[in-house]
Amino acid sequence: MKQTPQQNQSEPVATEVDQLREMLSRDQSKRARRLLKTMHPAKIASLLERLTPQQRVDALHQLDARTEPKVLSYLSTALRTQLAYDLDADMTQPKNGASPTDGRVDEEPETQLRLVLDALDQGKLKRIARLFHTLHPARIAGLLESLPATERARVWDMVEGERTAKVLRHLHEEVRRRLAAEMDLEHLIEAARGLEPDDLVDLIQDLPTATGRQILDAMDQRERERLQSMLSYPENTAGGLMNMDQVEVRSNIKVGTLLRYLRLREELPPNTDKLFVIDRKHRYQGILRTERVLTARPETSVSDLMETDFEPVPADQKSDAVAQRFEQEDLNSAPVIDAEGRLLGRITIDDVVDVIREQSAHALLGMAGLDEETDMFAPVLASSRRRAVWLGINLITAFLAAWVIGLFEGTLQHVVALAVLMPIVASMGGIAGSQTLTLVIRGLATGQLGSGNTRILLLKEMGIGLLNGLLWALVVAALAIVWFGNWTIGGIIAVAILLNLLCAAASGVVIPLLMSRIGIDPALAGSVVLTTVTDIVGFFAFLGLATLILL
Amino acid sequence: MKQTPQQNQSEPVATEVDQLREMLSRDQSKRARRLLKTMHPAKIASLLERLTPQQRVDALHQLDARTEPKVLSYLSTALRTQLAYDLDADMTQPKNGASPTDGRVDEEPETQLRLVLDALDQGKLKRIARLFHTLHPARIAGLLESLPATERARVWDMVEGERTAKVLRHLHEEVRRRLAAEMDLEHLIEAARGLEPDDLVDLIQDLPTATGRQILDAMDQRERERLQSMLSYPENTAGGLMNMDQVEVRSNIKVGTLLRYLRLREELPPNTDKLFVIDRKHRYQGILRTERVLTARPETSVSDLMETDFEPVPADQKSDAVAQRFEQEDLNSAPVIDAEGRLLGRITIDDVVDVIREQSAHALLGMAGLDEETDMFAPVLASSRRRAVWLGINLITAFLAAWVIGLFEGTLQHVVALAVLMPIVASMGGIAGSQTLTLVIRGLATGQLGSGNTRILLLKEMGIGLLNGLLWALVVAALAIVWFGNWTIGGIIAVAILLNLLCAAASGVVIPLLMSRIGIDPALAGSVVLTTVTDIVGFFAFLGLATLILL
Repeated sequence: MKQTPQQNQSEPVATEVDQLREMLSRDQSKRARRLLKTMHPAKIASLLERLTPQQRVDALHQLDARTEPKVLSYLSTALRTQLAYDLDADMTQPKNGASPTDGRVDEEPETQLRLVLDALDQGKLKRIARLFHTLHPARIAGLLESLPATERARVWDMVEGERTAKVLRHLHEEVRRRLAAEMDLEHLIEAARGLEPDDLVDLIQDLPTATGRQILDAMDQRERERLQSMLSYPENTAGGLMNMDQVEVRSNIKVGTLLRYLRLREELPPNTDKLFVIDRKHRYQGILRTERVLTARPETSVSDLMETDFEPVPADQKSDAVAQRFEQEDLNSAPVIDAEGRLLGRITIDDVVDVIREQSAHALLGMAGLDEETDMFAPVLASSRRRAVWLGINLITAFLAAWVIGLFEGTLQHVVALAVLMPIVASMGGIAGSQTLTLVIRGLATGQLGSGNTRILLLKEMGIGLLNGLLWALVVAALAIVWFGNWTIGGIIAVAILLNLLCAAASGVVIPLLMSRIGIDPALAGSVVLTTVTDIVGFFAFLGLATLILL
Repeated sequence: MKQTPQQNQSEPVATEVDQLREMLSRDQSKRARRLLKTMHPAKIASLLERLTPQQRVDALHQLDARTEPKVLSYLSTALRTQLAYDLDADMTQPKNGASPTDGRVDEEPETQLRLVLDALDQGKLKRIARLFHTLHPARIAGLLESLPATERARVWDMVEGERTAKVLRHLHEEVRRRLAAEMDLEHLIEAARGLEPDDLVDLIQDLPTATGRQILDAMDQRERERLQSMLSYPENTAGGLMNMDQVEVRSNIKVGTLLRYLRLREELPPNTDKLFVIDRKHRYQGILRTERVLTARPETSVSDLMETDFEPVPADQKSDAVAQRFEQEDLNSAPVIDAEGRLLGRITIDDVVDVIREQSAHALLGMAGLDEETDMFAPVLASSRRRAVWLGINLITAFLAAWVIGLFEGTLQHVVALAVLMPIVASMGGIAGSQTLTLVIRGLATGQLGSGNTRILLLKEMGIGLLNGLLWALVVAALAIVWFGNWTIGGIIAVAILLNLLCAAASGVVIPLLMSRIGIDPALAGSVVLTTVTDIVGFFAFLGLATLILL
């Protein structure tokens, strides 16, 4: 313990060079990486000078994207050039025939993932950095989400400083929170500055309150006030979705003046398909499409080109409703106003697309009791805990079904064929019911199902239940008669299936409607309740009838 | 039968007036509607003149949106004004306190639907026409989809001629096909002319071939050729999504010239956030953002402002991939090129949003064996037939499970408690497995799951299966022991649940991966196969162990 690198500063370099050499020769790239992480860039530079070219390249692979430029700045120009050349050669000739990165990146996500995993495996982390350099931040986010936690942290270090913000924006909530929590504050604030206000607001909402507070404090006053006003709206409203980068104009100016003003700005925010016309008190007056500006004569007045019948979005409108409007009216952007009609900001289609994706993930994953922001590679313990809840809920319903069966133990003992056939009755009911349920849940989500037409739908679904009930009752009865040679059992199962399919149709309509009326999301709990009903009705009808008739 | 309206032309009006009067006084608005449908507008006008004001208004309600203006043109100006006034009064004072349409339309879909249904009920169809007049075509489409077939046809007639095309575009495939099939060809062609090319292509693809052919023939040659080239790409590719309304520029012109050219055009197509730069041979060179045009000085050359690194979309790219790119890169529009690099058209975000919605509907409805284009109010017989297939598939799996149970009939006869508990084992496996399955299906859809990380995921899911298996095995065992007072059965069910949860985790990962490898959509068939496996394994493990130990 007498010569650990940190403690003895007199003759550290030699020892550390030896340590590093040994680690690199033994392919212990992770240990080398940890060692380098504790050192000052200048020290790393002096270490590098003492290594062989191959070791130098291997060591360089272990530097994260933020440290590397600092280390390079301490090296001589000649060594820097040499190193860049060596690194290049090292990357275009991978050791064991893995796919080479020859400038042009393969566009298949599968190949990219393979490349990242190979690079991790061989400790050639710079290959990942180079791949990332050519990829869109959203794709990088996708790759990060495809990795388990430890690998993800290593790869995350390879994202260049200025792009971390953009990658963060594209990550799912849970992954984002976890990666942000591991970043040091300075780095996080730097990333935060690179985000659009609406994305930054999302990030702050995902972080612990104290961290969010610190990020806010690091912003300048104007930006902070803006962020705070955006933070005051719930995440799932127009206010939570909006950005504040809109271009505002007054109605009394001419197109020529406007164009001069726009040229002075030099740049317009992305997705600017409309400018917003406001009055002296900053109240929303109408929209001015950029198309109109492009095609209008310079002497035209803005008031002649603007459209005053474009409905603005109230800041407290739910984001689902916003998404539906964008989708139905094919909008790219829309103004957001407060209760007094003042223009607050604008919502753009890219954020709406995210809302739509989240809705769909919510509907799909919710059916299995999963959260749409779930990290596919969350730690086993955390995942187990979350899923256990859903299994527990299901266990209650399973025991309810078992209890119903238990009521007829005596009957089952006499006619064991009933035990063999009873899952069929329950299962057919569950399938038929979930078809109806799914249709109704979608109808509720799209607003096509209201109090006016539920009766019609109920009748229609009961009709379908009747037809399919009759059909499959006959089929199952025939099969049961062939199997057990017992006509009575055939008759009993036929009646039970018909009853259960009718009940499934009714439950499929009624259960989600009741749930949404009392404020429970039917997409989440609907199918559990439904299958409980179809199980219980199925077992009860089948075993009950059998008890009446056979005993 | 001697004086039917069509046959006797000498003294028809008096009789028909009487017929109409009687129908209206008896509130038989549907019959009145059918009668009016057979008449020439001039005849209807002469009939109207002979009615009392209230009857006149009632009769007018029954005219469809295309006939009404023709009828009105035959009336005297005075009567026309009077009628407009009466109709207005009639609509603002609904008979039985239903929600009045006081100019400002209620924005709740629920209220709108109620209004339509009330209007249908009272035969005041013009109220629907007035409501539709203020609604976005997409909303009208939504309302149409909320109605059963007969009501839908009546309401459809109330859509004004010029808007039918836009409403058609927003309808789901099945509903669209049905409504279009009922329209007369002339009307359909008129509507087709109002559609954007990409939407028209969609419509033609949904119609019978002969009808599509007739629509194409009615277009002028240039339009027809354009449509035919678009029809040559499959619906689910970039070529099938694209439109041909892009603005093309050459790189050697100056911004000033470009602006003059744009002003000459007077109008730009919607969603024009980019112009496309092409060369002499119509090959794609790059994009020019309209933002850049707005902020650039007139003397700047297009070649200085254009971006050449914007990757165009190949026409044969799958629409899923296009949607993913739009989403990840926050695009509003993108150029589409053919194999030779020639610019064919462009894809805009509104069509991409439709793709995303369809994907999500497909994933959600597919799980229940439903088609995403399904009409919620399709006729009972048609719906029954489609759903029967899914029930039939499920029946096979249910019989497989029953067969496994049947193998252990002897055991069940000895220990009837097993029959009571066995559904619990199967059900827990099914729930746990579908959680894993759902995650994997999403991972495959987003491209986050590839051959590189499936092993990691499999291990993780097995870990979760082990933890939750142990937890719930203990819980269920304890409950079973309390219930039946039998420690052996408790032990058996614990082992069976643990085995089934491990098997569920493995199947949840492996089944969708195998399916997607052999080209079956796991979102459609995954859950059926999975629950078959968990049912069989669950019953087999539980009853098999019981047979070994208890007998």
